[in-house]
Amino acid sequence: MTNSSTNMRLKLPITCFILEIILIILFGVLVVYDHDTDAKLFNKNMKINNSTAGGHNGHGSGTSDDTDYRNDFYYRYPSFQDVHVMIFIGFGFLMTFLQRYGFSSVGFNFLIAALSLQWATLMQGFFHGLHEDGKIHIGVESMINADFCTGSVLISFGAVLGKTSPLQLLIMAVFEVTLFAVNEFILLSILGTKDAGGSMTIHTFGAYFGLMVTRILYRPRLEQSKHKNSSVYHSDLFAMIGTIYLWMFWPSFNSAVTAHGDPQHRTAMNTYYSLAACTLSTYAMSSVTAHDGKLDMVHIQNAALAGGVAAGTAGEMMLTPFGSMIVGFLAGIISVLGFKYLSPILEAKLKIQDTCGVHNLHGMPGILGAIVGAVTAAVVPKEVYGNGLEKVFPDVASGERETSYQAGMQAISLAITLAIAIFGGLIVGFILKLPVLGAPHDNACYEDSVYWEVPGEEHHEEELNAVRTEETEHINS
Amino acid sequence: MTNSSTNMRLKLPITCFILEIILIILFGVLVVYDHDTDAKLFNKNMKINNSTAGGHNGHGSGTSDDTDYRNDFYYRYPSFQDVHVMIFIGFGFLMTFLQRYGFSSVGFNFLIAALSLQWATLMQGFFHGLHEDGKIHIGVESMINADFCTGSVLISFGAVLGKTSPLQLLIMAVFEVTLFAVNEFILLSILGTKDAGGSMTIHTFGAYFGLMVTRILYRPRLEQSKHKNSSVYHSDLFAMIGTIYLWMFWPSFNSAVTAHGDPQHRTAMNTYYSLAACTLSTYAMSSVTAHDGKLDMVHIQNAALAGGVAAGTAGEMMLTPFGSMIVGFLAGIISVLGFKYLSPILEAKLKIQDTCGVHNLHGMPGILGAIVGAVTAAVVPKEVYGNGLEKVFPDVASGERETSYQAGMQAISLAITLAIAIFGGLIVGFILKLPVLGAPHDNACYEDSVYWEVPGEEHHEEELNAVRTEETEHINS
Amino acid sequence: MTNSSTNMRLKLPITCFILEIILIILFGVLVVYDHDTDAKLFNKNMKINNSTAGGHNGHGSGTSDDTDYRNDFYYRYPSFQDVHVMIFIGFGFLMTFLQRYGFSSVGFNFLIAALSLQWATLMQGFFHGLHEDGKIHIGVESMINADFCTGSVLISFGAVLGKTSPLQLLIMAVFEVTLFAVNEFILLSILGTKDAGGSMTIHTFGAYFGLMVTRILYRPRLEQSKHKNSSVYHSDLFAMIGTIYLWMFWPSFNSAVTAHGDPQHRTAMNTYYSLAACTLSTYAMSSVTAHDGKLDMVHIQNAALAGGVAAGTAGEMMLTPFGSMIVGFLAGIISVLGFKYLSPILEAKLKIQDTCGVHNLHGMPGILGAIVGAVTAAVVPKEVYGNGLEKVFPDVASGERETSYQAGMQAISLAITLAIAIFGGLIVGFILKLPVLGAPHDNACYEDSVYWEVPGEEHHEEELNAVRTEETEHINS
Repeated sequence: MTNSSTNMRLKLPITCFILEIILIILFGVLVVYDHDTDAKLFNKNMKINNSTAGGHNGHGSGTSDDTDYRNDFYYRYPSFQDVHVMIFIGFGFLMTFLQRYGFSSVGFNFLIAALSLQWATLMQGFFHGLHEDGKIHIGVESMINADFCTGSVLISFGAVLGKTSPLQLLIMAVFEVTLFAVNEFILLSILGTKDAGGSMTIHTFGAYFGLMVTRILYRPRLEQSKHKNSSVYHSDLFAMIGTIYLWMFWPSFNSAVTAHGDPQHRTAMNTYYSLAACTLSTYAMSSVTAHDGKLDMVHIQNAALAGGVAAGTAGEMMLTPFGSMIVGFLAGIISVLGFKYLSPILEAKLKIQDTCGVHNLHGMPGILGAIVGAVTAAVVPKEVYGNGLEKVFPDVASGERETSYQAGMQAISLAITLAIAIFGGLIVGFILKLPVLGAPHDNACYEDSVYWEVPGEEHHEEELNAVRTEETEHINS
Repeated sequence: MTNSSTNMRLKLPITCFILEIILIILFGVLVVYDHDTDAKLFNKNMKINNSTAGGHNGHGSGTSDDTDYRNDFYYRYPSFQDVHVMIFIGFGFLMTFLQRYGFSSVGFNFLIAALSLQWATLMQGFFHGLHEDGKIHIGVESMINADFCTGSVLISFGAVLGKTSPLQLLIMAVFEVTLFAVNEFILLSILGTKDAGGSMTIHTFGAYFGLMVTRILYRPRLEQSKHKNSSVYHSDLFAMIGTIYLWMFWPSFNSAVTAHGDPQHRTAMNTYYSLAACTLSTYAMSSVTAHDGKLDMVHIQNAALAGGVAAGTAGEMMLTPFGSMIVGFLAGIISVLGFKYLSPILEAKLKIQDTCGVHNLHGMPGILGAIVGAVTAAVVPKEVYGNGLEKVFPDVASGERETSYQAGMQAISLAITLAIAIFGGLIVGFILKLPVLGAPHDNACYEDSVYWEVPGEEHHEEELNAVRTEETEHINS
Repeated sequence: MTNSSTNMRLKLPITCFILEIILIILFGVLVVYDHDTDAKLFNKNMKINNSTAGGHNGHGSGTSDDTDYRNDFYYRYPSFQDVHVMIFIGFGFLMTFLQRYGFSSVGFNFLIAALSLQWATLMQGFFHGLHEDGKIHIGVESMINADFCTGSVLISFGAVLGKTSPLQLLIMAVFEVTLFAVNEFILLSILGTKDAGGSMTIHTFGAYFGLMVTRILYRPRLEQSKHKNSSVYHSDLFAMIGTIYLWMFWPSFNSAVTAHGDPQHRTAMNTYYSLAACTLSTYAMSSVTAHDGKLDMVHIQNAALAGGVAAGTAGEMMLTPFGSMIVGFLAGIISVLGFKYLSPILEAKLKIQDTCGVHNLHGMPGILGAIVGAVTAAVVPKEVYGNGLEKVFPDVASGERETSYQAGMQAISLAITLAIAIFGGLIVGFILKLPVLGAPHDNACYEDSVYWEVPGEEHHEEELNAVRTEETEHINS
């Protein structure tokens, strides 16, 4: 490998420009406003004689038509913004825990998310959004789904964090988004599986895909960068910004695309209690697994979130807060145990170098969530849902299938997800090994300065002291 | 005290596990979905023949039933999330101002909030949520109320910050939540007091409870940790994240559980102007009370928020923006004066070591808010409310009581709140003195490393320089 | 200039107090609740016989009247809170990139925003909110508009960042808000221009106003503070908090005051795709313009946001996601080129010292946005809007004007905005040169310690090491 390989000056811009131009062309050809974003469609029944134009304040007045409040925007946009924060702040800052990888964590997260959400709009639209007119119709729900798909890519990013170039990440994103859409299509559209919060489609898929990629990219001499694969005091605090935002907005994540009304409400509440219970079991496990009883930031930053992952499938069902708390409680325990005992084994025996421990936060809790979803679908009698059954299990409500059949589909979906993720990650891992993609050297992993202009800190320290003396003189003069 | 006392390895996990298991069992026995979260109840009048299942995007489609938009979720969930951010980011980061207590500030805040919101659901439900079926019915409004109660515990945490073990904090939370629910029940349910933003129930209660606890836990030799009881440059910036979030979302806090429609709208607006005015008076007072006119971060971080506290009771009333600004203006002045002149006296004379100055941010402004509430209830004629009176003062609207009587109840409520908080804090303070709870030594207060694995920073500095030299060589080679 | 000039002890408090007292008096005289915040007006048609008082949870129950969901609060408050976050966290933290100016960036941002939003309520209300009763009627829409006007002041703050006293900033805010309201009145009320996201009224205005101010305040010997006019590692991470929040919530910003229903929905979506495309072109340009291909944080922090600015006018029109992406793509390119090549020229030739590069983020992209708005108004046939035309172009819908005329007005509006901004900035710049306002010395720019009590960091380092040794002994004893 020559020096030029990590120099991104031509590779990165060319890739970005080509991808963006392709995206723009495809959007021009394929994408149109949906009913609720289109001026003509949404207002086709508007009575023209309401003389409200001019309104309150000059700055765009609201013509409060009878139907305005029914626009999907008001049902979903607050949830969308919470999900958006999770994707860009949550995932971005969660990964800043490394001492010298903050720019890359937030910055690459930003880049690949911005790409993924555009590509996901097309891929998801292609698979399950094409209308009779051959166009992809988009609105706030497709924006949420695009962000969801992006979340999956960012989970995989967590597995390879610090060991990949931005170019590798862009390539990974393009493939992963595509496979995500395929898997999602099989689960939701073909099998009629329910997975509103994405325990399977997002978390299990993203985690095992990423784990396979990092397996293929295995670096036997990674210990050369070992001293940088750890946190410092301030970087752990930055990471807590990510953790807390993910934790707070997870109820919005799981409920963002459920049916309107009670399912959105119920899902948010189930997730809220699952996370609360998970937090207590995480603290307990973190302390009991340390020889001196001291809490470990790695556990708090990650395992406390497992309750959100594990409530991703069953959250919209009649899981009850009681059930949610049991699920969260177990998820926290499993996740801390994974960080403490399983991750070192995966690295030593299976050669899986999982930087953020996504197996513990997304992998195992995602599988747990899938199982809880299947079990909940099986054991809660449909009478419990009353007329609301249609919103949660439309195929059961219409008499097309029984709850046990639904549960079977849920279980099969987990297997399919694992298969596609593992096989896909394997292939994509090999693609990412291309030397031209400019991966960092073994001794320059977890280090921003390979791909970023980094300001000098120690230089500043000395100078600053000099400056301060100078200043004091000036100010006192 | 022996070394083993601050080792949490058994104590903390056992406490967390026992508490969480009790919570889960009680939720299983007592808690059910309310009307708007239950699939059967919410959809009982749904017409089955609307053929919308399958919807836009596969991913859970919205069956836009006529009643969906009436679900309380859409009225309250955005406010809930803002409150949630205040509790976990706002309070958590506000307390990171200490140089070596960031992990504990955010981390213990996280732990005790996760416990408190579960326990509060039960306690508040027990006192004023029990339905004829003997169950506690929960939904988004109870989630907000649980977060509110949690806020009160976190205020008390601010008073004892740096001087308590996580175990002590958990025990404090259990008792404080219980007493909070009792006080809230007396005020809101028995006396018919209005206190939507909790000037009394949350702020006054939390502050005086915490002040009494810290009084009982008085440490005469705390000056041994004095050098750590201060900020550094970056910790003050982290704290500003907390401050700004609290400031921005306070309008949501005060309006989160008011009646639908104009009261929510009006409360948010009153709080917005109260806070803006408070910010100007805070900056003015911070500068004028410094000998060199320099602004003090402690004031900006705290006193600028007093306007939100002081608008907590009267915010939903017809206080007018004009009235709100006067209230905020006064709150900022009082709060800075408290930090500058009263806190040192409280510490020296009354032995109250109030780490965050909660007396200045929550105590005095809370009392001010209670008084403003009583006065506003008394002086605004009921004609000003028209039909809207029912939403703000239902007992006055129904003819049960006069505005003057309402005002009297408001005033009495302040006295009751103070009595319960002070007496409760006293008792709980003594309980927390139990040596088994593992409080830190006098010379190890305000220090994360007692309860947390803390990464070494200076080690990193040296190594980093070495590494950089190495890298430059490699990259240039 | 004597030492006393930067001492704010009397000047700042007196200014704050006088301004706030004037504001309070004017609010008392002029401002009243609008229809949706007033208890009497909003409920005048409420049926009294709905017996819902007492509701779910004691804590203020919702009397779900038929009209409650029509309150503008539910259409706009979530957007308002997103805008609020952009103003206080977004702008505030974006400017913390300087190594020793974090307190001032967040703190002065906080102060002048709190002033501006109050003054803007009056000025905007005076120009286009006065009702027949001679009062200013306010509610959530006026709160958003006040925040918007504040945003303009903060953009100008970015141009002079590090070189002004808080007193200068307050004076600037008072004048700028006034001129903003004049310009906004001419554009929106007289010319019938559409500019919901403020490409012209907010960004172009704020940028060129600030650039003229910093031109007049030109400091030939500013290189004396040059060593502090740069970032350090952690300050760049704090700045990314600001960037990401601005980026995420820009869809809410542009859509916050558009008409209800499809325009809000469409604007948010257009902005989302514009920003995503902009991010990719920003990364590409940042890499390609660096000799070693390394990404520059300055570009990422700023240019990636240009797509939001450039979609500010046309966002509510039928721009399509395709059009939005083209706009964002171009905005990112222009913005990075501006940072790289134009800013140095502006400083060297035109003596414009633009600390944050607001010309590149707000100036040029704002002009681009205005042009895109005029072009979109001209080229999209009105048939595309159907009945929805009334919500976007009421004057075209009513037959008062043609689309080409509308487009002409849009273009003229840009010229007027530039004229008022440049002329206004010139005058205000001269006012700010008054020595009594206490600007920092040339060698003390970009330095918090001039106006803030700053905690010692190096002191702490030494002490900390001493402490740790001590502690280890204690803990191990």
